[in-house]
Amino acid sequence: MGVVIAFDSGTDKPKASLDQLVKLTHADMALVNDFILEKAQSHVELIPELAGHLINSGGKRIRPMLTVAAARMCGYSGLHHLKLAMSVEFMHTATLLHDDVVDESDLRRGKQAARIIWGNQASVLVGDYLLGQAFKMMVETGSLDCLRILSDAACTIAEGEVLQLSVSQDTATTEDSYLKVVGAKTAALFQAAAKVGAVIAGRPRKEQDALESYGRNLGIAFQLVDDALDYSGKQADLGKSVGDDFRERKITLPVVLAFRRGGEKERGFWKRVMEQGEQTTDDLSYATKLMVKHKALSDTNERARHYGSMACDALAIFPDSEWKDALTEAVVFCISRAH
Amino acid sequence: MGVVIAFDSGTDKPKASLDQLVKLTHADMALVNDFILEKAQSHVELIPELAGHLINSGGKRIRPMLTVAAARMCGYSGLHHLKLAMSVEFMHTATLLHDDVVDESDLRRGKQAARIIWGNQASVLVGDYLLGQAFKMMVETGSLDCLRILSDAACTIAEGEVLQLSVSQDTATTEDSYLKVVGAKTAALFQAAAKVGAVIAGRPRKEQDALESYGRNLGIAFQLVDDALDYSGKQADLGKSVGDDFRERKITLPVVLAFRRGGEKERGFWKRVMEQGEQTTDDLSYATKLMVKHKALSDTNERARHYGSMACDALAIFPDSEWKDALTEAVVFCISRAH
Repeated sequence: MGVVIAFDSGTDKPKASLDQLVKLTHADMALVNDFILEKAQSHVELIPELAGHLINSGGKRIRPMLTVAAARMCGYSGLHHLKLAMSVEFMHTATLLHDDVVDESDLRRGKQAARIIWGNQASVLVGDYLLGQAFKMMVETGSLDCLRILSDAACTIAEGEVLQLSVSQDTATTEDSYLKVVGAKTAALFQAAAKVGAVIAGRPRKEQDALESYGRNLGIAFQLVDDALDYSGKQADLGKSVGDDFRERKITLPVVLAFRRGGEKERGFWKRVMEQGEQTTDDLSYATKLMVKHKALSDTNERARHYGSMACDALAIFPDSEWKDALTEAVVFCISRAH
Repeated sequence: MGVVIAFDSGTDKPKASLDQLVKLTHADMALVNDFILEKAQSHVELIPELAGHLINSGGKRIRPMLTVAAARMCGYSGLHHLKLAMSVEFMHTATLLHDDVVDESDLRRGKQAARIIWGNQASVLVGDYLLGQAFKMMVETGSLDCLRILSDAACTIAEGEVLQLSVSQDTATTEDSYLKVVGAKTAALFQAAAKVGAVIAGRPRKEQDALESYGRNLGIAFQLVDDALDYSGKQADLGKSVGDDFRERKITLPVVLAFRRGGEKERGFWKRVMEQGEQTTDDLSYATKLMVKHKALSDTNERARHYGSMACDALAIFPDSEWKDALTEAVVFCISRAH
């Protein structure tokens, strides 16, 4: 059965939130947090210092929550899902540290990026350390299937990041190519995070596949909304600077749509700012104006809704439960961030 | 029984070589090389391009050879040791890619460093990709013990690199602190590479421990000789520039010894060039002169011999075999590089 997502755009209804997911996973996530703090320790002081900066910076921990909620929805009552959740968060944290070096970002979650405080060198190496710790924890679960899924994800994420480098600054990027990047750099981890919940619970293939599909489509929706917010969000909500993608000349879906829907003169603008990298102070607001004119932002959000619906439908095979409700609401929340 | 290492310094005897190890492992290493080339593939073209640059740059592949030889000496007749050997080489390659970014190196194995050709960004991400592939291959062996050993090594290596960052440029570094860095950043992988050979062969603990000890001490010896060569080697043999460590202000054992053995004026020199980083064109040759004066280079090699002896003695519990001979000669070779 299909699920109707109640989007609240244009209405006065209260926005969807992660509250239910946060509430249900609260006890488990407290243990995951303990693990995270414990495993970010090292006798080399710089490691907990740098890792702690990012770990305590108020990320929503949505990926490890997916692992915990998926395992619980599948009736899992052991403790290994906590180790998997920690591994997922460390893989994500390692990616952020390396991303900030690659993107030369100054801000992360509203704070100075670690690389600004401790340097690129330490960010690369502490990222490597966290990735190593993630694998150590996966090994502790003794599940070769989970190890396979998460090491596959690690490769795919890196592959997606390299692909993004190759297509970056290329205005000829198609929506399909861009979706490949998103599928790899963002959705692969969401997908693995949700799937290992079913795997550790020993559930049959069709439930593993359902959670894989849920995670994948949620991840794509999440990234697309993020791309739109980079042009339309408020800096205080974003935890990063509005226009970062623009300044880093990243070709995201709003740019792809605006470029394709624009005339020759507008395409010349996009080539100048994105390909030649010649940007002046007024260019960001002109770019946003073009996106609004061509409905590039609202259609990016519309595309996100499409993937969000697929995520919710994927959960249909599971019996009704508060876990299922919470996972469904998480999708609605991710999409409603756009408004 | 102790093993007498016939060091050839000051004699006309032919130098020790890796020939025997290369010959014995030849068939296995051909398969490992096939694996390496296959697993460095990706539909993202930049990945095989960049990885291939380093993979085909003529490294001796000593670490994966250790895995192969250790497994064979232990009587292993399966194929999983090839996957482990590939994983070990990829872990090493990933470390090199990240190291070059961290050290801002221009040369690697006598060629332009990948980061110079493709940029720091791609080097970080392709390193991540290779690390992911390494874990995927480990998972394929189905050995949780090997996964544990190698993921421990991954953490330790990263920890060692961070530790090196923290102690770098500090002339007060003691020999002990420096050995901690070497034990982590270099010896941990040698140690794991040799140990997993016994583990995959299903050999008892004492043989695993023996190979672990062999690998660890060989790794330390290898690094110390490398440190001395950075001041005394010939550029053509090194595949990197003489004096790289000096210019990067790395505190290695020759510096530790020369600093401690020097008078106030000489310590002032070391503080200026290493801590304040004020280096002029003549400083490298003066540094080398001080090292010769205080026997810092010959004593670094002497220390390497000490660890080399421990490595050979660790093998004593294995019955005599051509494999054992080859592993012993590999130690002699690593040390004789110094001459």
